[in-house]
Amino acid sequence: MSIREIILDAGEILKKRYFEDTVHNVKERYHLLSEADNEINGYFIEKISKEFPKYSIYSEESEEIVNDQSKRWIIDPIDGTTNFLTGNPYFAVSIALEIDEEIVEGHVYNPVTNEYFFGSKEGMVAIFNGQRINVSTSNEIKNSIIAFGYSTNIKIINEYYKHWKPLFEKCKKGTPWIAPALSICNVARGKVDAFIDTGSSMEGQAAASLILKNAGGKLYDPGFNDYTYRSKGGIFCSESISYNLKMAYKSE
Amino acid sequence: MSIREIILDAGEILKKRYFEDTVHNVKERYHLLSEADNEINGYFIEKISKEFPKYSIYSEESEEIVNDQSKRWIIDPIDGTTNFLTGNPYFAVSIALEIDEEIVEGHVYNPVTNEYFFGSKEGMVAIFNGQRINVSTSNEIKNSIIAFGYSTNIKIINEYYKHWKPLFEKCKKGTPWIAPALSICNVARGKVDAFIDTGSSMEGQAAASLILKNAGGKLYDPGFNDYTYRSKGGIFCSESISYNLKMAYKSE
Repeated sequence: MSIREIILDAGEILKKRYFEDTVHNVKERYHLLSEADNEINGYFIEKISKEFPKYSIYSEESEEIVNDQSKRWIIDPIDGTTNFLTGNPYFAVSIALEIDEEIVEGHVYNPVTNEYFFGSKEGMVAIFNGQRINVSTSNEIKNSIIAFGYSTNIKIINEYYKHWKPLFEKCKKGTPWIAPALSICNVARGKVDAFIDTGSSMEGQAAASLILKNAGGKLYDPGFNDYTYRSKGGIFCSESISYNLKMAYKSE
Repeated sequence: MSIREIILDAGEILKKRYFEDTVHNVKERYHLLSEADNEINGYFIEKISKEFPKYSIYSEESEEIVNDQSKRWIIDPIDGTTNFLTGNPYFAVSIALEIDEEIVEGHVYNPVTNEYFFGSKEGMVAIFNGQRINVSTSNEIKNSIIAFGYSTNIKIINEYYKHWKPLFEKCKKGTPWIAPALSICNVARGKVDAFIDTGSSMEGQAAASLILKNAGGKLYDPGFNDYTYRSKGGIFCSESISYNLKMAYKSE
């Protein structure tokens, strides 16, 4: 099986579970979520171990499998768990291949909508459902659509306030998003001009960061310093908007 | 054609447009959005006028068509326009039938996921894809999942802060949602325990409010007073959580 076939099959499991609807309280819902996470993660571990026996596997959901440490699959079985949990189809499977501490291949797949984003170091390509994609060309804040990796957690909101209040006020539209992998991909596809996130971890960023880079995007850490997919969160934007975004950022 | 057939056909138009991806700046995106809104709205006006020639039609997108004023279709061609615009499949078509100033039938349909919510005064039913639905049974705030009709607009955020800060801090999970019709339906389906909204208008609430009522939900205006679907926003929740939600609300 190719990694794409493994992902498409895992997507079927995820989609089936999303449409199941047999429980009516929060504890049971979280139980179902963790079952889904475990099932999909287990499926990935089994298939990837079989097809790539010498590779290491890092997943959000289980202990790292350590083989050859220079070759590692990085897995987020469900990017956007809260959406998955609450009947919102904005979630994805995210898988990246890391060779010598560099991401060389990225896959982000929403199984409900069949939206498949793919990026590869080889050829520097970023592809959405078979088509090359590019970031948007908007360059003015007042004409921009900005997604924020938002939650209702007050600490996170205050963090945004501190740095981005003028941007909130001036952008054409701000939208609150969870599911970092899909959101970074939607910058790559030019659907939004930037995605600003303080909370996502490596598993959510690894695949999508390569896709965005190859689509002509710019990536920074949350303080506008050099980006690495190991950062907690980041600033993911089109090249066109990057300068004005930097100007809108208040460092303290 | 039945109203359901009209809605399913309109959904096809909406879905096709959602997956079209030919532009790369914000102005063009908004142009496409308004084209989609106009096309779907035009389709509804044409078909409904033909099938229900004596009924009035109220739509967000065009001048009201006034015939018999005691029978009126209320249309929101795209509930969740920002999601539609930005590559997020959480949006819907919403249509309600109002007879003598009461909603007697409600339809909310996400064409990307084929999720169809239906409510009818006759028989007091709330149905999701052919199955009866009910609100959740969670009653404690600490075990609740709460959706907020959120944006990055600072005035709106401050309004939430003022009334709901303790809820933000105590609920198990808070999630920021746009698309009020779908969000109210996800309360009806027990996916979340409450949806608290300050911004939605009649078109977004009319259909879903009947569905929620019939699924055993409670509805209030944003200040916890009597609800009407003509209110600006509302508090949409399960019966079980309603008391503790009221306790968590600070009136000033």
